[in-house]
Amino acid sequence: MSQSFLRTDALPALPGPYLLFLGDVHEAGYAKTAFGLRDWAPERCVGEFACAGATVTTGLPFLTPAQAVAAGARSIVIGVANIGGQIPEAWITSLLQAMEAGLDVISGMHMRLGELVALRDAAAALGRQLIDVRQPPAGIPIASGHRRTGKRLLTLGTDCALGKKYTALALTRAFAQRGHAVDFRATGQTGILIAGRGMPMDAVISDFAAGAAELVSPDADPTHWDIIEGQGSLFHPAYAGVSLALLHGSQPDVVVICHQPGRERVLGHPQYALPSIEETIALTLQLGRRTNAGIRCGGVALNTAHLDATAAEALLRSESQRLGCAVADPMRPGPAFDQLVDACLV
Amino acid sequence: MSQSFLRTDALPALPGPYLLFLGDVHEAGYAKTAFGLRDWAPERCVGEFACAGATVTTGLPFLTPAQAVAAGARSIVIGVANIGGQIPEAWITSLLQAMEAGLDVISGMHMRLGELVALRDAAAALGRQLIDVRQPPAGIPIASGHRRTGKRLLTLGTDCALGKKYTALALTRAFAQRGHAVDFRATGQTGILIAGRGMPMDAVISDFAAGAAELVSPDADPTHWDIIEGQGSLFHPAYAGVSLALLHGSQPDVVVICHQPGRERVLGHPQYALPSIEETIALTLQLGRRTNAGIRCGGVALNTAHLDATAAEALLRSESQRLGCAVADPMRPGPAFDQLVDACLV
Repeated sequence: MSQSFLRTDALPALPGPYLLFLGDVHEAGYAKTAFGLRDWAPERCVGEFACAGATVTTGLPFLTPAQAVAAGARSIVIGVANIGGQIPEAWITSLLQAMEAGLDVISGMHMRLGELVALRDAAAALGRQLIDVRQPPAGIPIASGHRRTGKRLLTLGTDCALGKKYTALALTRAFAQRGHAVDFRATGQTGILIAGRGMPMDAVISDFAAGAAELVSPDADPTHWDIIEGQGSLFHPAYAGVSLALLHGSQPDVVVICHQPGRERVLGHPQYALPSIEETIALTLQLGRRTNAGIRCGGVALNTAHLDATAAEALLRSESQRLGCAVADPMRPGPAFDQLVDACLV
Repeated sequence: MSQSFLRTDALPALPGPYLLFLGDVHEAGYAKTAFGLRDWAPERCVGEFACAGATVTTGLPFLTPAQAVAAGARSIVIGVANIGGQIPEAWITSLLQAMEAGLDVISGMHMRLGELVALRDAAAALGRQLIDVRQPPAGIPIASGHRRTGKRLLTLGTDCALGKKYTALALTRAFAQRGHAVDFRATGQTGILIAGRGMPMDAVISDFAAGAAELVSPDADPTHWDIIEGQGSLFHPAYAGVSLALLHGSQPDVVVICHQPGRERVLGHPQYALPSIEETIALTLQLGRRTNAGIRCGGVALNTAHLDATAAEALLRSESQRLGCAVADPMRPGPAFDQLVDACLV
């Protein structure tokens, strides 16, 4: 174990800042990655670019690739998804234009950039990088199980896709606002683009998954916080193994349990009932104790996007009373969220 | 879910029977794979072959590759390991001779056969297969979580490397001797060579690990048993995620917990105490219930290789009384093992 408290980030950094690419989409729902980057990593985004005819905008200045390079951009990030996860022909001309202007290309899509011959040839000819953030780095070790210095918080959920990443981001922002040294630690492709580095946990070979989680949050100063984006759920019939590897490798001191009120069945697996919040807290602490005997629950994050402010506030209050811990929606700043931050930091 | 009860083995079969290759080793300890194949898959082994000067023998007839082909062999299996897991130059001449005689080459070593240019070129020229059993098949799906037809037994352990594979093999043999339709289902490289097919769980991308486990034991006749080789341990700081994915995807009706008496620390992770057998049974049933509510513990398998017969028998008896379940060493046939088989089959 390092005794120097010098953080050594083993994970490579993405070249930034970014020019956000919006493709040719006409619906904001397909540009979630670009909006996430605008909201959570504004310092990493110099502007946006799109194919002719695209109608979606993040509100950032529209820059040609040449203008973006002049403004300091080092890469163009594909900020849109489309059905099927493939990169359409229509985008390729724009991406080639960006590469010619001097930008590397970064993608979080399932399709590998290097599968597109035009991009691969241009990258070789121009000396540009094609970076797939779903591709784990080489040389991930088997987990050592050794305790690391610094403090760690991990978000876990009752299911997939209910706010673990945004909870971690909101907590990171709040910790920083209170003057704590803190890093958001990304474990999925959108989080990696936001943080500028991270580990695509779902793409790691299973024997190395806990080792990959150890790499995500290296030794740090004893007062430093890593806030780690959770993946899957310990109760998920397909992904529980990934969640457990991430829990064991993260060795969190504090966990925050994320849930979406009203969701009763596992997304995509309707034959499975969602676990209760209490069951999720209990199993998380039970299993997490294996690699960190001091693990505790900081509180619960509810995704109340479907409720109005009054209903959300009432629910947060009643759930906090029922569960006996801090309960907040990290997307709704206010006293409840302040109490959750307090409870994580004690 | 299939309603036909027709077993559809999605996993490709290895070409057999085998000629066992013993390389140039002089210590039987390095030929564990060959001895395992001789003991557990004699019907798949036509003979053995080695470099000039090798002194280890399995006792099977020594055949040249041409003689082996005449005896029906379809492949040569590397039955030895060496320090570092690399294939030495000295073996290559022998493997080329085998390929020229008409045999495919099968390896469970870390090094990929295709990395050796001489073998790759010969395979292309002669139309032979180079098969690495550590390489998972393409197209593994995300786990569905659907229940499958047929009965399943999974071996789990308090740690790695204490008898999960041999327990599964011994139970498979015993079930068959009692007239049950049964298949040993392999999840590691030696098991795959023995079964002739299987899934190298430790090499599967983590998001697909539970899906891979579902492929290992497909729909079967309602009275058919799959006996599935376990991997790792739910308490292992590096591998628990693999173990949980295998447990969830296997959906076992019965589990048998494997332990080596006297082992007190996790192999290779001495800072971690081994869990007790009782804790391991409890956590296995707790987590396994998520995908099979009817899961139960059939009993405990102890690896007593370090004890003499009298001491082993006394320990099995006292542990059976202490734990209140069948306890046997599957490598020691007799009443204790018969009781374990009974308890699994009730």
